[in-house]
Amino acid sequence: MKQIQSKDNLVVRQGMKVAAGRDKTRILLEGVHLCEEWLKRYGPPESVLVQASAVDQPDVVRLLAANDAARQYLLADALFNAIATVQTPQGIMFVATRPIPAAITRLATTALWLDRLQDPGNLGTILRTAAAAGVRDVLLSAGCVGAWSPKVLRSAQGAHFALEIHEHQHFPDIRARLDMPVLASSLGPGARSLYAGALPAACLWVVGNEGQGVHPAILADADQCIFIPQSDAVESLNAAVAAAILLFEQRRQHMQV
Amino acid sequence: MKQIQSKDNLVVRQGMKVAAGRDKTRILLEGVHLCEEWLKRYGPPESVLVQASAVDQPDVVRLLAANDAARQYLLADALFNAIATVQTPQGIMFVATRPIPAAITRLATTALWLDRLQDPGNLGTILRTAAAAGVRDVLLSAGCVGAWSPKVLRSAQGAHFALEIHEHQHFPDIRARLDMPVLASSLGPGARSLYAGALPAACLWVVGNEGQGVHPAILADADQCIFIPQSDAVESLNAAVAAAILLFEQRRQHMQV
Repeated sequence: MKQIQSKDNLVVRQGMKVAAGRDKTRILLEGVHLCEEWLKRYGPPESVLVQASAVDQPDVVRLLAANDAARQYLLADALFNAIATVQTPQGIMFVATRPIPAAITRLATTALWLDRLQDPGNLGTILRTAAAAGVRDVLLSAGCVGAWSPKVLRSAQGAHFALEIHEHQHFPDIRARLDMPVLASSLGPGARSLYAGALPAACLWVVGNEGQGVHPAILADADQCIFIPQSDAVESLNAAVAAAILLFEQRRQHMQV
Repeated sequence: MKQIQSKDNLVVRQGMKVAAGRDKTRILLEGVHLCEEWLKRYGPPESVLVQASAVDQPDVVRLLAANDAARQYLLADALFNAIATVQTPQGIMFVATRPIPAAITRLATTALWLDRLQDPGNLGTILRTAAAAGVRDVLLSAGCVGAWSPKVLRSAQGAHFALEIHEHQHFPDIRARLDMPVLASSLGPGARSLYAGALPAACLWVVGNEGQGVHPAILADADQCIFIPQSDAVESLNAAVAAAILLFEQRRQHMQV
């Protein structure tokens, strides 16, 4: 393991760039859980950064044993903390190549389309919920917040590694590749209640921007617009909550028990 | 309307104290929507702070007209921004007395107990979801994050004003006042599936701490422990998402359409 003391070191400078979202091809995985999940799905990362004071922690030792020593860097605590995006880092970070899933040719199992979603915490929660609901493909429109930022990764709690996350998608392209209907979340006129009838076993769910909802062009192109019957005590549901209620109602209806 | 230019002014110092959570009896309501909701439910607040550059905005003018001029303070932008907890404030804030609901004597309509919930964003989302599900009473254990902090208020989007929020509650006290069963969210052994049978029309739902779940003493005292059947692709659901799925499944079963 190489020891690094200077902030001018290339590994440190690259780490800072990745942490700040200025590296479009790499991601930063912070903490034991995310590093473990990465290893399980993708194997050893590009580099492993270790906090000097954490080098003897059992979780860190175990993760180091699973990686090639030539790609491990021991960073003085101040350097490690300067890269970390959390206040109390867990002593280990991976710098890895951002996964790019294979382009979609046909889509026939329930998937989720996110239209211009803005809040990283919301996006992370939605990814976590989608994985828990058994969804495999999540598609993000242009204008969505980046799916691999440290904040989204943290909030998704490892769900990234159970999903295929397709960023910068164009709705008409995907629409033409679907072997299932499009169901869009909407509070507008013409929407039917989520609880008014049977849901298809597979569909593309569309959930929209936190303030504006789903884009009118997508609503017009959806097979059904669906609303969640709620009290009028508040104007609307949080986007992640709405996605959860939709996905789990479908799961309830079609789950094999 | 009084004009304020100095950061030593009492109103400014009080505003900063409230914004920082160091005033236990007052709360800060930021932005047009929260101020409007406060007015509708509680009437004029203790004081109204206006950002000098926003004094002619239609929303602000309308809110000012609904309040006593003697309690209105025009703050130089820098002073206003120093109090605000958001980066781009909307030009108006209320300082108001924290509402304390009447103590619970009996409880017979669906309510939500939050056990040591830690994240302000989660708490706000849960309050918003509870209000949307038609819940009136939300009870918070000791050890929950404060319910009236600016971050919780922001994330709840006005739900505070549709709810009775009871903080610092003691579970055995409330348990003795229930005319309905306790249903606790749990992934442990003995829990039954949310989808395995009928839910009661009214119950006290218990949702637990983000990391540890519901306290074992409450689980042991619950009438039923309930789990949400999920894929094993992720370990668990976000606490706010879990609360949403529970509350809306009950709403689905018992909703009057």
